[in-house]
Amino acid sequence: MNNRKMRMGMIGGGKDAFIGAVHRIAANIDGQVEFCCGALSVNPEVGRQSGKDLFLDDDRIYANYQEMIEKESQLPADKRMDFVTIVTPNFAHFAPAMMALDHGFNVVIEKPITLSLEEAKQLQEKVKETGLVLCLTHTYSGYPMVKQAKAMVKEGKLGAIRKIMVEYPQGWLSTLTEREGNAGAAWRTDPTKSGKSGCMGDIGTHAAQLAEYISGLKISKLCADLNIVVPGRGLDDDGNVLLKFDNGANGVLIASQIAAGEENALKIKVYGEKGGLEWHQMEPNTLIVKWLNEPAQIYRAGQAYLSDAAKHNTRVPGGHPEGYLEAFANIYRNFVLTIGAISQGQEPTAAMLDFPKVEDGVRGMAFIDNVVASSASDQKWFDFKI
Amino acid sequence: MNNRKMRMGMIGGGKDAFIGAVHRIAANIDGQVEFCCGALSVNPEVGRQSGKDLFLDDDRIYANYQEMIEKESQLPADKRMDFVTIVTPNFAHFAPAMMALDHGFNVVIEKPITLSLEEAKQLQEKVKETGLVLCLTHTYSGYPMVKQAKAMVKEGKLGAIRKIMVEYPQGWLSTLTEREGNAGAAWRTDPTKSGKSGCMGDIGTHAAQLAEYISGLKISKLCADLNIVVPGRGLDDDGNVLLKFDNGANGVLIASQIAAGEENALKIKVYGEKGGLEWHQMEPNTLIVKWLNEPAQIYRAGQAYLSDAAKHNTRVPGGHPEGYLEAFANIYRNFVLTIGAISQGQEPTAAMLDFPKVEDGVRGMAFIDNVVASSASDQKWFDFKI
Amino acid sequence: MNNRKMRMGMIGGGKDAFIGAVHRIAANIDGQVEFCCGALSVNPEVGRQSGKDLFLDDDRIYANYQEMIEKESQLPADKRMDFVTIVTPNFAHFAPAMMALDHGFNVVIEKPITLSLEEAKQLQEKVKETGLVLCLTHTYSGYPMVKQAKAMVKEGKLGAIRKIMVEYPQGWLSTLTEREGNAGAAWRTDPTKSGKSGCMGDIGTHAAQLAEYISGLKISKLCADLNIVVPGRGLDDDGNVLLKFDNGANGVLIASQIAAGEENALKIKVYGEKGGLEWHQMEPNTLIVKWLNEPAQIYRAGQAYLSDAAKHNTRVPGGHPEGYLEAFANIYRNFVLTIGAISQGQEPTAAMLDFPKVEDGVRGMAFIDNVVASSASDQKWFDFKI
Amino acid sequence: MNNRKMRMGMIGGGKDAFIGAVHRIAANIDGQVEFCCGALSVNPEVGRQSGKDLFLDDDRIYANYQEMIEKESQLPADKRMDFVTIVTPNFAHFAPAMMALDHGFNVVIEKPITLSLEEAKQLQEKVKETGLVLCLTHTYSGYPMVKQAKAMVKEGKLGAIRKIMVEYPQGWLSTLTEREGNAGAAWRTDPTKSGKSGCMGDIGTHAAQLAEYISGLKISKLCADLNIVVPGRGLDDDGNVLLKFDNGANGVLIASQIAAGEENALKIKVYGEKGGLEWHQMEPNTLIVKWLNEPAQIYRAGQAYLSDAAKHNTRVPGGHPEGYLEAFANIYRNFVLTIGAISQGQEPTAAMLDFPKVEDGVRGMAFIDNVVASSASDQKWFDFKI
Repeated sequence: MNNRKMRMGMIGGGKDAFIGAVHRIAANIDGQVEFCCGALSVNPEVGRQSGKDLFLDDDRIYANYQEMIEKESQLPADKRMDFVTIVTPNFAHFAPAMMALDHGFNVVIEKPITLSLEEAKQLQEKVKETGLVLCLTHTYSGYPMVKQAKAMVKEGKLGAIRKIMVEYPQGWLSTLTEREGNAGAAWRTDPTKSGKSGCMGDIGTHAAQLAEYISGLKISKLCADLNIVVPGRGLDDDGNVLLKFDNGANGVLIASQIAAGEENALKIKVYGEKGGLEWHQMEPNTLIVKWLNEPAQIYRAGQAYLSDAAKHNTRVPGGHPEGYLEAFANIYRNFVLTIGAISQGQEPTAAMLDFPKVEDGVRGMAFIDNVVASSASDQKWFDFKI
Repeated sequence: MNNRKMRMGMIGGGKDAFIGAVHRIAANIDGQVEFCCGALSVNPEVGRQSGKDLFLDDDRIYANYQEMIEKESQLPADKRMDFVTIVTPNFAHFAPAMMALDHGFNVVIEKPITLSLEEAKQLQEKVKETGLVLCLTHTYSGYPMVKQAKAMVKEGKLGAIRKIMVEYPQGWLSTLTEREGNAGAAWRTDPTKSGKSGCMGDIGTHAAQLAEYISGLKISKLCADLNIVVPGRGLDDDGNVLLKFDNGANGVLIASQIAAGEENALKIKVYGEKGGLEWHQMEPNTLIVKWLNEPAQIYRAGQAYLSDAAKHNTRVPGGHPEGYLEAFANIYRNFVLTIGAISQGQEPTAAMLDFPKVEDGVRGMAFIDNVVASSASDQKWFDFKI
Repeated sequence: MNNRKMRMGMIGGGKDAFIGAVHRIAANIDGQVEFCCGALSVNPEVGRQSGKDLFLDDDRIYANYQEMIEKESQLPADKRMDFVTIVTPNFAHFAPAMMALDHGFNVVIEKPITLSLEEAKQLQEKVKETGLVLCLTHTYSGYPMVKQAKAMVKEGKLGAIRKIMVEYPQGWLSTLTEREGNAGAAWRTDPTKSGKSGCMGDIGTHAAQLAEYISGLKISKLCADLNIVVPGRGLDDDGNVLLKFDNGANGVLIASQIAAGEENALKIKVYGEKGGLEWHQMEPNTLIVKWLNEPAQIYRAGQAYLSDAAKHNTRVPGGHPEGYLEAFANIYRNFVLTIGAISQGQEPTAAMLDFPKVEDGVRGMAFIDNVVASSASDQKWFDFKI
Repeated sequence: MNNRKMRMGMIGGGKDAFIGAVHRIAANIDGQVEFCCGALSVNPEVGRQSGKDLFLDDDRIYANYQEMIEKESQLPADKRMDFVTIVTPNFAHFAPAMMALDHGFNVVIEKPITLSLEEAKQLQEKVKETGLVLCLTHTYSGYPMVKQAKAMVKEGKLGAIRKIMVEYPQGWLSTLTEREGNAGAAWRTDPTKSGKSGCMGDIGTHAAQLAEYISGLKISKLCADLNIVVPGRGLDDDGNVLLKFDNGANGVLIASQIAAGEENALKIKVYGEKGGLEWHQMEPNTLIVKWLNEPAQIYRAGQAYLSDAAKHNTRVPGGHPEGYLEAFANIYRNFVLTIGAISQGQEPTAAMLDFPKVEDGVRGMAFIDNVVASSASDQKWFDFKI
């Protein structure tokens, strides 16, 4: 544990912003973070009121991110923020992230990392150049049973991986929600704010990251079919992708926001020579492990038989379900432990470093680029290029 | 109900043949069929002993199918078999089916219908020409909750269908079982006995038939990736297919026999404008119906609120699970009711006629042809051709 | 397997009688039984028409059970029925069973065996005296995963059994269905036809038999609370019973027919020193096995790792669900194998003899007597007396 | 929301104390509480180090609770703690709670509230006398789908309640864990620290509170069977209780800590005239609602169709699972909103006041007393007395 709380500033995430609240909860859970300042809205009045509601000191509620980064960087080291969390829509990630890094602040960014692959690569360069830490909140890789799955694959329990099926169906864009006052739907379906892809960028990237994270493999080829199912929409709201991984395994990735009646039903199945794994995000404390010629097993979060990685990312004993917010908090905790260790001149451990980084962001943007190009082409297989 | 039992002869299905026993159970369940004769094995001695074990009269245990069809056709009308069930491996379906039809017998064939599309088309011609009835045992469309799903789609409960996800993972070919004395594995992975495709022919066709059956749509384009995952195998043991249906809906079909630890995990999800359906073969008495902005519902077999089609294909009240054998028996029952009605000069009802026919067989063979061709090609989308 | 089909006669079970149809299906499934005669209804005309619909020969459709037993006993040995199945309401079990045994016929009786414990004991005497076989269709002990559970307990996999929780909630008597034309509800709630108890007699006995069957223990004490929940009903429609078993284990048995919205949700959990078992009748192909400090396991019907008893009672491979009718058929198959073996002068094996017998019937009637007496008393614990 | 963070002091909950960490997380989640001081261990050195690890100011790490309450009460109003959380073992709840109330501090107590009913009543008197707020952390009533269940019962959706089945099986005391260095097991099985009952006090009270909370009914009679299953243990580790509620409904409550292989499997089923509810703590985001003659429904946390109470106690949209810590945080949030409202001279709303209070504690202690007395008696039914 760190020797002091790490101080967090936030850009975006004012009143009624769902994901900002999630970041604050995730940062709060373990009592290792102090929320100290914010530029919480493009509307300064909303930003000010949001800051007050969140008990920020008046002089650390800023009108915009530029002001925040400038002023915080002038504060004494024992007062200024340690890192900044960026929870604006996609198009407004890049500029504040670059500025924060330039001013010496570590960064947490909501995914997808940027609007384009090019921006993501610049950010990667900047991170390298500054030596600072950038954390990308691919939440789903924060679940303890996802850690367990990764650990079991890595230990060779399943043998070589042969096939991965990952699906992420949602139903909330089954109608033109974006024209019915749903702000989240509005920017996600607007190419100028969301980027080249809608559904694949928003949730397909989570599925791809999860598949690569658990398997330790990299997508090497793909064949995509993106669809605009609801007439009048500006970006894909659905897509299916055939995959090949770098070890020759095959896969299928399905993402949809028009799967009527689905909530957030991310599921993954990974099959190897000796067995298979199955995990569902909506019942995240269970990992089903299947074997050739033996009964399948129900691995459960919080149990003593789990891997160190699973245990490190769990707070309560078995049978006390943890969920999305705890998975999110795991991303934060590991990030905060990492920057805390660095701040004390220590080397972060592998367990601390287990959170998505700028490289994941670059890969996510490349996934979007490749999927969009593949979908538009008559050629069957596309090499995954970064 | 019929005014007498229908008499069944069987070709193949002797000692230790799994699927022959299944056909006999399915035919027996409702007490509407009398098993009267058989040519149960290519090995006449095995055939004879099998017939005795199954209580056939000695003079109706035949040495081969030719003898059986010849001799039965010479028996008086009130004694000879009404239909013949063919449960030999794929390559030995066509000849006995043609001969049976030529001699005036109705036919039940285990799927896939033949070894090639060409044979299937000839059989279709022969059925048309003779006016006899051919039943193909795509068992999964016999489940009551599949009937319910079909009825709900047809009534427009889900609105226009937009997306179909169907997966059929098995794990039993994760090793080279075919070289370890598993006879079923041996012929299924042998191109001379199984045809152009292994996994897609064996189980992918079930998945395709189920998707078309429930949705009432037809696959119009596909993009396939077939794989031989276990080195040394002669036919695909795994495959993924992107689909387009004739109304513009998209889909994904996954079939695998190397999904280690899976049993027979056929699952389908169908999404429309207003809601979605989910059905799992391994828990077949439940149909989950999902709605936009309303709680999902758990439809259960045997309940009074179900469609007529679901009720017609159920034997016991809710909470008394029916399974695979009853689904199989539904195929038989409807077929037997159909030929019984015809034999009494009556018109079979739509409920009676609800079993897979030669057209399904032709479509299944075409599916195999199209999938194999698509998989071998660099072109992305293939028009589904028959 | 037997050297000929066993011939079944049936008493009761005419048109629209649910359980008669179930018995015929169960007897038919394996092709080992020939349904040869019947006295299918107290209304001779209904009985005659039912017999014709079921393809019985005219001269073996009898006006009443007396006639049937008399006339069948005069037929030559190679023609007359081997056993009689009694599927009348509870009050009409005893007389035909006694008469059948007296005339040398084996008997299958739907449970509960008789109207009173006294009758059951007389029947037990008669069975002993005649050396014939009586089978009681406690269906739930016919499921393969129940056999597996029993085998695992017996092998000591769980250590000594400490606690059993069994519940059997149904909802179909939540209203006064018996006054709305539901014949099954009418006799079940009528003390003159059903006996001392409604719900406990009808389904509580199943739960008690299942608990004793799996655990190999006997209920030694109980403390019961029977309730008439729906005003105006004549017999208990709900009840809860605290149990002690003969090894000191404790238990709870809950049975209800007013659990609104429940179908037939029999569930049992058995806990020993080392682990626990959980089985649900509505998803009967799965047995969850729980361990101290190890992941729980999912045992599945049809798998090679199961006990001989489970395999002997399964027809299809893993992943092809079997259900209630197959469980019922297992009772029949084992009974038929037993009487077949005896008829050939052979000793039935333990696997053949694994079906409920007259002793189970006596125990069931004693359970009803004890529960009813306990419920009426202010004394807490009742010794289980037979 | 409040106009400032509420300040929390903690008694107990030092290093390695599970429940103290849970309280801190629950208090932290919403950013509405500042953890300001603590007397974290009976061992002052452990207490001091724990306080430092948790970033408390040195001068607010106290040697014992007396010192803490004294000194805090002397701090200015804008600095001193607003409430104290007591997370010591049962026997050490009463004295600090009384002292805290006497010094004007609101109190949060881990359940069971005290060691005896008598103490609980005194505490109730003290709360009444001081007008302060006491919150008892019966966590399970904090889950949103439990709120939904309560709301649906209250609205009469199920009609009058007829039957309640609640079970709470755990397996962690299947061996003599208390002699193997498990501190939590040690005090829970020690009558001097835990009180009259082990299992029933520890988890049976949760089950009873949940049943009464959802149903709005009160237990009026009971018949209990408490067991010491593992030889050598000092208190019950298992128990079964028959219940009657004040409207005439019946029920069963099962609690066990020797249900080998179970984690924390609290489940409740509530049946009314028109339908039933089923909720499982280990999958808490789902509430199954069953209906007579209609398909059951799957109510899911985070959905727009839920009751206000469910929504008020949810942080993230449907499909993002919340768990035990969020349920716990709901108790805290409502308590903190209540004391915040009072501190601003406002009336707390009903939604704010929805957390367990001293009355629940008194009822819980009475439940223990009644269950223990009933179990020891030969009399069947005990009137529930407070």
